Amino acid sequence: MSAGNDAVRVMEVGPRDGLQNEKALLPPAVKIELVERLGACGLPAIEVTSFVSPRWIPQLADADQVLGAICRRPGVDYPVLVPNLQGYERARAAGADSIAVFTAASEAFSQRNTNASIAQTLERFAPVIAQARADGVRVRGYVSTVLGCPYQGEVAVAEVVRVATALHQLGCVEISLGDTIGVGTPAKARAMLRAVASQIPMAQLAVHFHDTYGQALANVLACLEEGVRTVDAAVAGSGGCPYAAGASGNLASEDLVYMLNGLGLHTGVDLSALAATGQWLSQQLGHPNRSRTGTALASQ
Amino acid sequence: MSAGNDAVRVMEVGPRDGLQNEKALLPPAVKIELVERLGACGLPAIEVTSFVSPRWIPQLADADQVLGAICRRPGVDYPVLVPNLQGYERARAAGADSIAVFTAASEAFSQRNTNASIAQTLERFAPVIAQARADGVRVRGYVSTVLGCPYQGEVAVAEVVRVATALHQLGCVEISLGDTIGVGTPAKARAMLRAVASQIPMAQLAVHFHDTYGQALANVLACLEEGVRTVDAAVAGSGGCPYAAGASGNLASEDLVYMLNGLGLHTGVDLSALAATGQWLSQQLGHPNRSRTGTALASQ
Repeated sequence: MSAGNDAVRVMEVGPRDGLQNEKALLPPAVKIELVERLGACGLPAIEVTSFVSPRWIPQLADADQVLGAICRRPGVDYPVLVPNLQGYERARAAGADSIAVFTAASEAFSQRNTNASIAQTLERFAPVIAQARADGVRVRGYVSTVLGCPYQGEVAVAEVVRVATALHQLGCVEISLGDTIGVGTPAKARAMLRAVASQIPMAQLAVHFHDTYGQALANVLACLEEGVRTVDAAVAGSGGCPYAAGASGNLASEDLVYMLNGLGLHTGVDLSALAATGQWLSQQLGHPNRSRTGTALASQ
Repeated sequence: MSAGNDAVRVMEVGPRDGLQNEKALLPPAVKIELVERLGACGLPAIEVTSFVSPRWIPQLADADQVLGAICRRPGVDYPVLVPNLQGYERARAAGADSIAVFTAASEAFSQRNTNASIAQTLERFAPVIAQARADGVRVRGYVSTVLGCPYQGEVAVAEVVRVATALHQLGCVEISLGDTIGVGTPAKARAMLRAVASQIPMAQLAVHFHDTYGQALANVLACLEEGVRTVDAAVAGSGGCPYAAGASGNLASEDLVYMLNGLGLHTGVDLSALAATGQWLSQQLGHPNRSRTGTALASQ
């Protein structure tokens, strides 16, 4: 690992990016238990839910209730996704002190996914981010479709750099670069990250891979070699790909932590507790555990 | 990729290492069709079966029948596993012109898996390899448990080097380094490969990873960066791990080829045809396809 930095921050996105792509509608109590169990595993950051309208994401319609009920561990970051100023105010009323905003590097994806151009999403985020900064609220920015788009196919690296830089200039303290449909491979992931890191300090970048084609962990490895030290993942590989029915979802946190342990990179995460949480969540979701490490540890 | 060599040889091991670890007993006609379909995908090397006694591997009890029946494509390597001179003679009688022998880097594994010490397996292979060389038969050597053992845990890199070198000196033209239980991670895989390559030319080495903990493709990436250009994999991720019930099996060939395509490394393999073969095999085996690329492509 080239960065001379042996600590990796795992951003657990299962309660948000995982659950919003699952068919099952879990009751709020299960989501609250999930977040609290993840906190007990030692994860430093847990994305709790989304304040996008329940019309679009019925799985997370209970965002206020869940965010309001979780016991928060000192020092742990609990961001929630907000789509606009109205969502921000809802999130704040429910107790949010960390948020995330979400746009795309693909114009076609932005139009189809949010019914707005990339420029319009950035305009919408400007007052949200300004207000958050005034409130002392941490802001993470997501750039999706960084390695490919289900509608337009190829996405230019220059567009990823442009959108990431715009979010950074608006005040996002962390930019998560997301391969939303999981089509990327290691050399492309590395080149994309390197290009973004030419404009934004690596310490403010995160990578976010989906395992649709089984490439997620190899992509992470390439990006770790490039110096990234924040990695998004979802316990039990929860989620899925709306563009490939039956396909795998997010990179499984357990598989990530297993690799990081083997690489001598420290996470502070208790892998046994994480694997147990993934097994429990898979039972709640009613399908097999999509984490290979989780499945292997459960069989021992 | 550091090696300045953009072609990778994919050794398809599904018909042997995959099927011998599946519960399903497939009829010979299905196995013959599998090998022929894999050949039609453009794979340069397909391990057909094993001449280990049917008492130990009932899944491959029809080795003579399968090897004798397949249509062979010119230029494609069709090795079969042989355990001893008797197995070699059976294989030759069935038409084998390429064989593989199998030992371990772990003394405990060798004793438990083959009821013989590593030294005894090497003694047993010496006349097999000598006879094969005299017959103009290609010999591949497997070293298993190169990154961990289910019985003794850690396996010293020096032991891997010692056993690989012994097989090479006996006349194996290729040595496949196998993480039999899938516990390895990229830095350890790379260090192990580098140590072996200090004694044996890299062009004569192959890597063989199992996906028990989801690490297989990341391990391959690290080894490609180190210069290896032969990689074992099994269509549909067939197989499993006898030491972790329900766990994943071999690295899926489809996921490997997808990554190699993205890295600009040429395989000659038709990924669509390979994915279709994996879907068909999964139906024959009666369980979900374990290749993520295969599942994603099938859902489109």
